[in-house]
Amino acid sequence: MNFLEERIQKDGIVKEGNVLKVDSFLNHQMDIELFDQIGAEFQKRFAGKPINKILTIEASGIGIACMTAKHFHAPVVFAKKSKSINIEGEMYVAEVESFTHKCKNQVIVSKKFLGPDDHILIIDDFLANGCALQGLISIVTEAGATLEGIGITIEKGFQAGGRIIRNLGYHLESLAIVDAMDPQTGHITFRSQD
Amino acid sequence: MNFLEERIQKDGIVKEGNVLKVDSFLNHQMDIELFDQIGAEFQKRFAGKPINKILTIEASGIGIACMTAKHFHAPVVFAKKSKSINIEGEMYVAEVESFTHKCKNQVIVSKKFLGPDDHILIIDDFLANGCALQGLISIVTEAGATLEGIGITIEKGFQAGGRIIRNLGYHLESLAIVDAMDPQTGHITFRSQD
Repeated sequence: MNFLEERIQKDGIVKEGNVLKVDSFLNHQMDIELFDQIGAEFQKRFAGKPINKILTIEASGIGIACMTAKHFHAPVVFAKKSKSINIEGEMYVAEVESFTHKCKNQVIVSKKFLGPDDHILIIDDFLANGCALQGLISIVTEAGATLEGIGITIEKGFQAGGRIIRNLGYHLESLAIVDAMDPQTGHITFRSQD
Repeated sequence: MNFLEERIQKDGIVKEGNVLKVDSFLNHQMDIELFDQIGAEFQKRFAGKPINKILTIEASGIGIACMTAKHFHAPVVFAKKSKSINIEGEMYVAEVESFTHKCKNQVIVSKKFLGPDDHILIIDDFLANGCALQGLISIVTEAGATLEGIGITIEKGFQAGGRIIRNLGYHLESLAIVDAMDPQTGHITFRSQD
């Protein structure tokens, strides 16, 4: 097991309905030393790519994206989930269905901050059915930017999102891929990545 | 002018209606090197305080809070703006009015991550009327935690939020306090902090 899998097994809580709670270190309380390690690992996995910008989506992707951006010396752009009156002018828009919140959101990125010269690394905390990620990819495509890779912290390997993205030929790296979880015993089966 | 005031004067855009757009480096695209400098400055201003946790609110506070937490070697907890089905159990709740989005939100923090032993530094990107900040303070109070200080990146000094918080005796540090803005010339008047 790598450092993240060990942490998930130690502090993650498996609930009925394929819910994995990692809110004590990942998406409500955030362990910044762990995020720094995650960022260093992404830097290793995407080494040599001309990444000049990190793209993520609010809210829980932002912390990991920032700590990753530090290792790439690149800025972060985060997609916003609803139109704010402080964002004006032209925007890229994608529609994203949220499994967690059971609703559809528009996600938007200002055209000022993504364009054909950009080489993008998408970072997010979770990948399950992949709706949020598909929205981000469509925004990168619409911008004419180059998608250099996708870095996910935890992938639910028993859902279709990761398979679809890999089938489409994208370079997807998930630091931990959960293939099965048992809510009775709390045991988590990770996909071997050697 | 300090490093942040210089950056705001250089890249901030003043709009009618007392709007200051800093989305090219602060709250849509995020300059991580700048955030690191901001974190170091907060560390200096709150040096010697036994801060063990950073509290912020989604979404645009998260990046600054994470880069600040790195300097304090402390975790970040971010208040969430609506109830997620992945958060269960008991929570601290505060009602927050949003000037930007013209609506009321409940913000919540799980009771697991804030308690009487915690020494909290609140970090946020903006302080204007102070509604979000008042909500965070009420959550810290409800938790029985000690509020060691409040670090704000940009305060709109011509709105009441900062004055009220200082009148209440809290240790509030705003790295840049905007006392006036001219949408015709783009000139920004900062409050002297020497």
